[in-house]
Amino acid sequence: MVELAREALHTSVTDPVAASMNFLNEVASRFPAAISLAAGRPSDEFYAVEDAERYLAVYIAHLRAQGMDEPRVRQAILQYGRTNGQLGPMIARMLETDEDIRVPGESIMVTSGCQEAMIVALRGLCASPGDVVLAAEPCYLGFSGAARVLGITVVPVPETAQGLRPETVAHVAREVRAGGRRPRALYVVSNFANPSGVSLSTDVRRGLIDVAAGEDLLILEDDPYGLFGLDDRHSPTLKSLDTGQRVIYLGSFAKSVFPGARVGFLVADQTVVSAAGHRSLLADELSTIKSMVTVNTSPIAQAVIGGFLVSCGYSLRAANREKIAFYRRNLRALLAALEHHFSDPAITWNSPSGGFFAVLDVPVRADEKLLELSARDYGVLWTPMSFFYLNGGGSHAIRLSCSALATGQIDEGVRRLAALIADVRS
Amino acid sequence: MVELAREALHTSVTDPVAASMNFLNEVASRFPAAISLAAGRPSDEFYAVEDAERYLAVYIAHLRAQGMDEPRVRQAILQYGRTNGQLGPMIARMLETDEDIRVPGESIMVTSGCQEAMIVALRGLCASPGDVVLAAEPCYLGFSGAARVLGITVVPVPETAQGLRPETVAHVAREVRAGGRRPRALYVVSNFANPSGVSLSTDVRRGLIDVAAGEDLLILEDDPYGLFGLDDRHSPTLKSLDTGQRVIYLGSFAKSVFPGARVGFLVADQTVVSAAGHRSLLADELSTIKSMVTVNTSPIAQAVIGGFLVSCGYSLRAANREKIAFYRRNLRALLAALEHHFSDPAITWNSPSGGFFAVLDVPVRADEKLLELSARDYGVLWTPMSFFYLNGGGSHAIRLSCSALATGQIDEGVRRLAALIADVRS
Repeated sequence: MVELAREALHTSVTDPVAASMNFLNEVASRFPAAISLAAGRPSDEFYAVEDAERYLAVYIAHLRAQGMDEPRVRQAILQYGRTNGQLGPMIARMLETDEDIRVPGESIMVTSGCQEAMIVALRGLCASPGDVVLAAEPCYLGFSGAARVLGITVVPVPETAQGLRPETVAHVAREVRAGGRRPRALYVVSNFANPSGVSLSTDVRRGLIDVAAGEDLLILEDDPYGLFGLDDRHSPTLKSLDTGQRVIYLGSFAKSVFPGARVGFLVADQTVVSAAGHRSLLADELSTIKSMVTVNTSPIAQAVIGGFLVSCGYSLRAANREKIAFYRRNLRALLAALEHHFSDPAITWNSPSGGFFAVLDVPVRADEKLLELSARDYGVLWTPMSFFYLNGGGSHAIRLSCSALATGQIDEGVRRLAALIADVRS
Repeated sequence: MVELAREALHTSVTDPVAASMNFLNEVASRFPAAISLAAGRPSDEFYAVEDAERYLAVYIAHLRAQGMDEPRVRQAILQYGRTNGQLGPMIARMLETDEDIRVPGESIMVTSGCQEAMIVALRGLCASPGDVVLAAEPCYLGFSGAARVLGITVVPVPETAQGLRPETVAHVAREVRAGGRRPRALYVVSNFANPSGVSLSTDVRRGLIDVAAGEDLLILEDDPYGLFGLDDRHSPTLKSLDTGQRVIYLGSFAKSVFPGARVGFLVADQTVVSAAGHRSLLADELSTIKSMVTVNTSPIAQAVIGGFLVSCGYSLRAANREKIAFYRRNLRALLAALEHHFSDPAITWNSPSGGFFAVLDVPVRADEKLLELSARDYGVLWTPMSFFYLNGGGSHAIRLSCSALATGQIDEGVRRLAALIADVRS
């Protein structure tokens, strides 16, 4: 019987972050009764299981209503289909309605979740070992993990309470270049970031676009939480401000529809020019990579999302009113509970203006040992912020999530966490 | 407006093979009336579009019948779910029924098509720049393309008319090692390979497993065509002969069900041992990589395949009788047409015992120029075999596919091809 040495497997498997996430999952499974302020998944209470069948049927009816004959409808649902998918025009319409982003349908690649969009964009842009990407730190694990799978170096740009500072991005880009490497792109979550909850002001958004032009970077804008602000004001996406086509927009339907479709997308409307002068669309060039990762995104899954878009008149904002209200209620409950249970001035937290997450700074080490104690003796789970730092950091900070809990559980979860911190300090 | 230099994009985009496939697609789109002996996709005439909805409903009913309560059913279909998917036990049952492969459900990872299974397995096994994979050549483009995305070198092992010779594999593995690199795995299509149509004898299968043990390789066995033999004899899969757990089995439902689900899988029942002596299952270790490529495979798509497996009593072989008969008829029609239209002894072809493909050797250069002429003036498309060689080869050979055509078109396609070759020679 062969036995494989774990150390001979790729660093994606053996990296400490992978071990940390496994530890978190393992603790969660050992203490299933604990209240989870760790789970950042969307609530699944807004749909019945029959909705998947219903939206699939809506999409099929839509194709027929458009005059598509039966063999072509069958092909659209059951065959491989176009590498970049069939929802481009629908998604373009949605982006114009909801986000004032005006791009042609052909510039949109439908992906197997936003995760694949990251893999495809990273792979396309980073060609040589010296090609690196910058990312706001603390950084979403899916992004740093995608880069690790591809062997691409992520250079952190420290985030402040106001988000990224454009001048810091410029500074890091110049440092990278001075070190003989080429910074290709900057990854940023524009609204209510995971893990920090931080959003960028409109001025910062404009500043980042200017820096991208000045430093010859692209911006990978990830915006899964943009719908879920605490109020109805919403900042313009970087993509909507992007007159110079510096932004590749990464989209997800996991929070706005449901995760089970695993449908995401990227917008890459940039022009690519070959040495011979031939011009093409970046989305088309990237399709070669997409074809080697998953061939194309499940047409059945695309059809479910397509049916949803048809049903909601191509506006996720309109379709998500109930969910927006739920997540607002939960984030307000989280912030109120922090106010209520933490009176020690040595303990602080931020007040995100939307999204699923907030960060609590504590005067004790928020490590795996404390998490184990927390789960076992206090019945509450959370995520150490240190997981989200590439080279150390976040040792005394905790990510709190409120998206997957019933509103009524949040206060009790925070109460338990406050008891843990108080006991450990005394 | 930014303009990106095409040459600065990753080699997956700029590689000549990508250009070749684009050329083929482009020729096909310019001459839509041409008979395509190039398209290797499965026929989509065996299902109605409503089957997708029906199998989804069957799976949901199956979960309820097993006593799953409504919130858990909803989660199973609409939430993210387990990284390695939910069909492991069903696929294990199918593999035992159809292929005499006995593996635990936990050793199976459900992937977003077999393409993702290749990406995940390659990434997991190849950790350092010196880690390479061997592959039978001519080689399936999806495999060499997946390796290219990850920057992994593929070392070709020439295939003979009888398939791979185990001693050649051993020889190449030793050469690789002598050159300071580490051969981690051998990729092989065991039955009716794409592109060559070649199958491995049972002796060769056993020989390859012995060589894998001797040279410390794993075998990546890809078997998308195994069901579609010209007769009912079928050779044992390498995985069913694999007493030493040397084989990672890559599975697809694209041909046996339909491609639109984009559901495939891998079987990785190998034991992994860490330096500290902790033992785990390779499938579990690889899940970290899968989570960074697509998070998990669409539960909706999994449900459609799950419903199919429930409906057919977990036997693809039983469920595919009609399709098996269709592909037999088509391959026989292809071989009969070759016999009928090519009498010149300088033109030869192989006689695969099943599958979608055969190879025609011609005394003229079968290049893109000839393909263009063929499409424009003769109304027939095919694939140059040179596309499937990593370092040159196949310049005078043509891959013919018969899977996506109505049986009646095959003879006419071959007649046109024979006219082209005759005219070019004269």
